[in-house]
Amino acid sequence: MSPAAQILATLRQQDGVSGADLALRLGMSRAAVWAHIEELRGAGFEIEASPHRGYRLVTSPDRLLADDLLARLGPVQVIGRDIRVFQETNSTNDVVEKLARDGVAEGVVVFAEAQSKGRGRLGRQWLSPAGKGLWFSILLRPDLRPQEATRLTVATATAIARAIQQQTGVAPDIKWPNDLMIAGKKVCGILTELSAELDHVKYIVLGVGVDVNLASGEFPSDLRRIATSLRIAAGRVLPRPELAVAILQELDREYARILRGQFADVADEWEQRCTTIGQLVSIRLGDRVLRGRAEALDESGALLLRTEHGRLERIIGGDVTVEK
Amino acid sequence: MSPAAQILATLRQQDGVSGADLALRLGMSRAAVWAHIEELRGAGFEIEASPHRGYRLVTSPDRLLADDLLARLGPVQVIGRDIRVFQETNSTNDVVEKLARDGVAEGVVVFAEAQSKGRGRLGRQWLSPAGKGLWFSILLRPDLRPQEATRLTVATATAIARAIQQQTGVAPDIKWPNDLMIAGKKVCGILTELSAELDHVKYIVLGVGVDVNLASGEFPSDLRRIATSLRIAAGRVLPRPELAVAILQELDREYARILRGQFADVADEWEQRCTTIGQLVSIRLGDRVLRGRAEALDESGALLLRTEHGRLERIIGGDVTVEK
Repeated sequence: MSPAAQILATLRQQDGVSGADLALRLGMSRAAVWAHIEELRGAGFEIEASPHRGYRLVTSPDRLLADDLLARLGPVQVIGRDIRVFQETNSTNDVVEKLARDGVAEGVVVFAEAQSKGRGRLGRQWLSPAGKGLWFSILLRPDLRPQEATRLTVATATAIARAIQQQTGVAPDIKWPNDLMIAGKKVCGILTELSAELDHVKYIVLGVGVDVNLASGEFPSDLRRIATSLRIAAGRVLPRPELAVAILQELDREYARILRGQFADVADEWEQRCTTIGQLVSIRLGDRVLRGRAEALDESGALLLRTEHGRLERIIGGDVTVEK
Repeated sequence: MSPAAQILATLRQQDGVSGADLALRLGMSRAAVWAHIEELRGAGFEIEASPHRGYRLVTSPDRLLADDLLARLGPVQVIGRDIRVFQETNSTNDVVEKLARDGVAEGVVVFAEAQSKGRGRLGRQWLSPAGKGLWFSILLRPDLRPQEATRLTVATATAIARAIQQQTGVAPDIKWPNDLMIAGKKVCGILTELSAELDHVKYIVLGVGVDVNLASGEFPSDLRRIATSLRIAAGRVLPRPELAVAILQELDREYARILRGQFADVADEWEQRCTTIGQLVSIRLGDRVLRGRAEALDESGALLLRTEHGRLERIIGGDVTVEK
């Protein structure tokens, strides 16, 4: 952590701390403390200074700052050990894929305030305007077979739904395999990309897009029918750094469960949050459409579909439509 | 095709052709024809010139030359539309993966006379000395789901076994999933690497290594027990360009069958050539070992194993040992 991040972490733990205490605790001069406080103020942190109470953090800006996120996150097992924030990138998945090829360890998270070429599934575009959402990607190197990668999508959806519920009071529904929905509209998408041999995952890039603070008018008209934001759902603007930290904490917890072989526990919670289970659905797989009832997840994360002909099919991906 | 390659193609079709005919046919001066003939002689082609019979190709060098391979190959559907030859690379799979990310069309084949970091499955090293084998990789962009990628490994093994049999008279056995064996020793390995979303392959890099002309003494002692070459098996040195062309032709044919949905036909031939089917085997999957009888391939290319407990398991990869 940088000195400024250490000061921030201290100000978050303690409501009022003197420059002398900060200098002592962080092993720097009072003049250096003052310079870092000025630096933080410049970044948008409102920090009060009074002779009696010392420095107090009053408000934080709605900006993603790597040191600030690391300081808030505290110790993690894997996800968020390393956080990098870009003002703008093409696609955070592309940035993380490059890190993967360069041999970077799993757990690195790359955020972008804006993406110029945000991607959804099958190369679809993902709207990623500056400062309005959480657009990020995570590098994982789990010891899984390619067909088990769906487990990570399931765990990711569960973790993010839980974090959103904590932070906003609104519980999103999970639509299999990779969407979080509020009132029937998409609020978060997950893009799982993998590099593998036939029987062995080399690495996985988990891309996440959460529509946080878009106002209704900020969606293009073709998206307004099908997409929403947490701001619209909760009726207020949400602080993105808090939400980002809550999501990373839940993701780290779920990933640890997967690595410990406790996928069944993850799947249980997922099924409770999932509106697809129990429904009559049609699923498009390339140029084939399967219809039937979504029954459950199997142990690899695949959807078990009881087709209209009574057969049980394992479905690993595809576009799902719930039949009315 | 370059002018020199066009001259080569003509000399291969016609046993003796005058400089005047060549000049007319290729739209160049007789002096230019002569210059290209000299260029080909410089590359190792033995070309006779006589006043009566004109130019005749007597012998070709055992070198991989992109234009020569393209000229010999003739029209193909996908595989071999574009051929590139490197004197030495780290790994042809890495070269092709870079081409894939740059958006190059499927069907490109990259050969290297030598690889400094040839790779086998699970990051194992693959010995690739200069001029002794066929070390190459192919870029494919099939409309498959990741778990169907095994089909391509099956088709590749079948095509290469057939081409080797044509060219040498020796029929290799296929050892599931990705090895060709002669007299119980490995002569060819196939490394299938894929980039995918959960339900959709973005691209596949098929890497192939065929030990063609290594003499027994050219294998390190630890490999001598388990590896062999076509030269050892056939008792003679084999011309690599002919073999390369035969392999690409068979691969192109098998890939077209896969794309037409005729995987069952591919699997039939594969099963006839496969020594694993019908055997009692043990298969290592990470830290788990399954034992049972290998019964057949399923429609996705997975091995159906009847375990010692009577259950039928679908196996997608792993290290297979045939029990004695």
